[in-house]
Amino acid sequence: MKKFINHADDFLEQSLSGLQSAHPELLQVHKDPFFVTRKNINQDKVQIISGGGSGHEPLHTGFIGHGMLDIACPGHIFTSPTPDQMIAAIDYCQPKNGVLMIVKNYSGDVMNFEMASEMIDTKNATILTNDDAAVINSSYTEGKRGVAGTLIVEKVVGSLAESGASLEECQQFGLHANNLCSSIGVALTSCTIPAAGKPTFDIENDQIEFGVGIHGEPGRRREAIREANLIVRDMVEATFQDFRERDVKIGGNSEFIVVVNGFGATPLSELYLIFNSVTNILNEKQLNIERSLVGNFTTALDMAGASVTLCLLDDAIRKHWDSSVYTPSLRWGI
Amino acid sequence: MKKFINHADDFLEQSLSGLQSAHPELLQVHKDPFFVTRKNINQDKVQIISGGGSGHEPLHTGFIGHGMLDIACPGHIFTSPTPDQMIAAIDYCQPKNGVLMIVKNYSGDVMNFEMASEMIDTKNATILTNDDAAVINSSYTEGKRGVAGTLIVEKVVGSLAESGASLEECQQFGLHANNLCSSIGVALTSCTIPAAGKPTFDIENDQIEFGVGIHGEPGRRREAIREANLIVRDMVEATFQDFRERDVKIGGNSEFIVVVNGFGATPLSELYLIFNSVTNILNEKQLNIERSLVGNFTTALDMAGASVTLCLLDDAIRKHWDSSVYTPSLRWGI
Repeated sequence: MKKFINHADDFLEQSLSGLQSAHPELLQVHKDPFFVTRKNINQDKVQIISGGGSGHEPLHTGFIGHGMLDIACPGHIFTSPTPDQMIAAIDYCQPKNGVLMIVKNYSGDVMNFEMASEMIDTKNATILTNDDAAVINSSYTEGKRGVAGTLIVEKVVGSLAESGASLEECQQFGLHANNLCSSIGVALTSCTIPAAGKPTFDIENDQIEFGVGIHGEPGRRREAIREANLIVRDMVEATFQDFRERDVKIGGNSEFIVVVNGFGATPLSELYLIFNSVTNILNEKQLNIERSLVGNFTTALDMAGASVTLCLLDDAIRKHWDSSVYTPSLRWGI
Repeated sequence: MKKFINHADDFLEQSLSGLQSAHPELLQVHKDPFFVTRKNINQDKVQIISGGGSGHEPLHTGFIGHGMLDIACPGHIFTSPTPDQMIAAIDYCQPKNGVLMIVKNYSGDVMNFEMASEMIDTKNATILTNDDAAVINSSYTEGKRGVAGTLIVEKVVGSLAESGASLEECQQFGLHANNLCSSIGVALTSCTIPAAGKPTFDIENDQIEFGVGIHGEPGRRREAIREANLIVRDMVEATFQDFRERDVKIGGNSEFIVVVNGFGATPLSELYLIFNSVTNILNEKQLNIERSLVGNFTTALDMAGASVTLCLLDDAIRKHWDSSVYTPSLRWGI
């Protein structure tokens, strides 16, 4: 294993220190316990808190700022943050109108956010994201996993919260957005957790993991690598099947946000090639890509691979997707 | 080799098609020959053209748009673009006030841009970027290589050109900015060119290449991997030595832009850890980081590794760095 680290046990602290130094105008990193807050806290708006194991950057710490998150609680690499992190963060921010927790559906995250929810006096509500079409139940999850669709939920709910909406309105809108998202990922290689020092899983030189999770959890199948167009066609079909199973209606001229997300070690040129493939497939179906993101947004450390997320657009989602955002890793309109 | 490709020979075309589909409001991809232009061409400003072998994305195609490049000519992977690409692009854009070519110092790029320069009727000037402190003369270069400092030159010259400056003013400012930049890179792994199908170089599991080039060219030395803080200290010292050798004066309270650039397969969390290390080292020296970028900006396909670029700030560079920019991969103020 080769990584830019000093010691596995101070990796998170030093990485967060770098985040702080790079974005002093946007955020504040707190270290005992670890949590990250906006530089300028607005106690009157609904506070949006997210978090999860580290190793998926920029999710979630890179999405702190105007129009998106107020608080992120990073756990150690691929390890859930603990309730004391959420409690300390909420205590620090002193929200007057409630806290909305956006939690990716992993058992540890769910349990720890739930515990925090019960232990704080502040009014709070939760959105569990579970946009991964790949599998139901897996290594760390009951039900479906939360993956790259989470950033869409964070973006649009963050925008709504910025406009002064209530906790209930934000929660309902987030559940709505999550329902309209479907994602699927493919791994070409494993990732390597620094403290483990060796790849999370073995994979042959000509194989891919179709439906992989963002911690390297098994997906639907191990198969031989094929032309990208064929892999991507299966990925897009998996999201459509997921929409059908959940009665999300896709019809002629439906419009989408498409996120082509790299897992950490796949070049941008390949991600654009995947996006081209998604575009061609959706064009065939007379479906329209109205908004897109291509890059590394919900990563799995140094895994080579990528995911495709489709989010069905309606007027509210379009409005809150387009609104200004100013965070370390997503910025427009400012 | 595992990559998201269909065939090695249509990789560039399909990747550029994806770029086009993702950013229709910003740019137009032309395919015979390959060049990328801004969607809205302003014939009255100095046109800024760059280009080089593909595989370094987002450099240069991801930097097309307001406040940065007008034209990018992508060659095949790690292969110089040919003069017909530059000539066709300039012919398409019909600049009235000259063309400024920003060319990374690789022999093929230099030769082909020079040939284009001689074959066009339009008034033109060139900036060769050569910010790589690592080595003088290497596989594809006489003198020093142009690496991640190039994006700083493109940003600040692009801003100046947007303000209506003349060709001569833009060239002088670009040469000035290039002179104030110094970079150095470290590779943990090789990259793999799709058409080659195997790693460009071999490297042991406990070794790094200190001073590597962005095509995997040899650097200063092969050495055992150490703590990141020690590697980064050597990197920063190499840039300071380069500044001293070129009589660029660094004194107490000098201010810098620092770019920590991933080569393609290094997680953002490690890049922030490197940035933290650079911050600590510059603080010791009572030098100030006033602006920063942390992410993948000048990549080497799927190489694990990173570079550090220091650019000494003066008022003009600060002003043109801060000005609004709207491109696929660098965006602020809009």
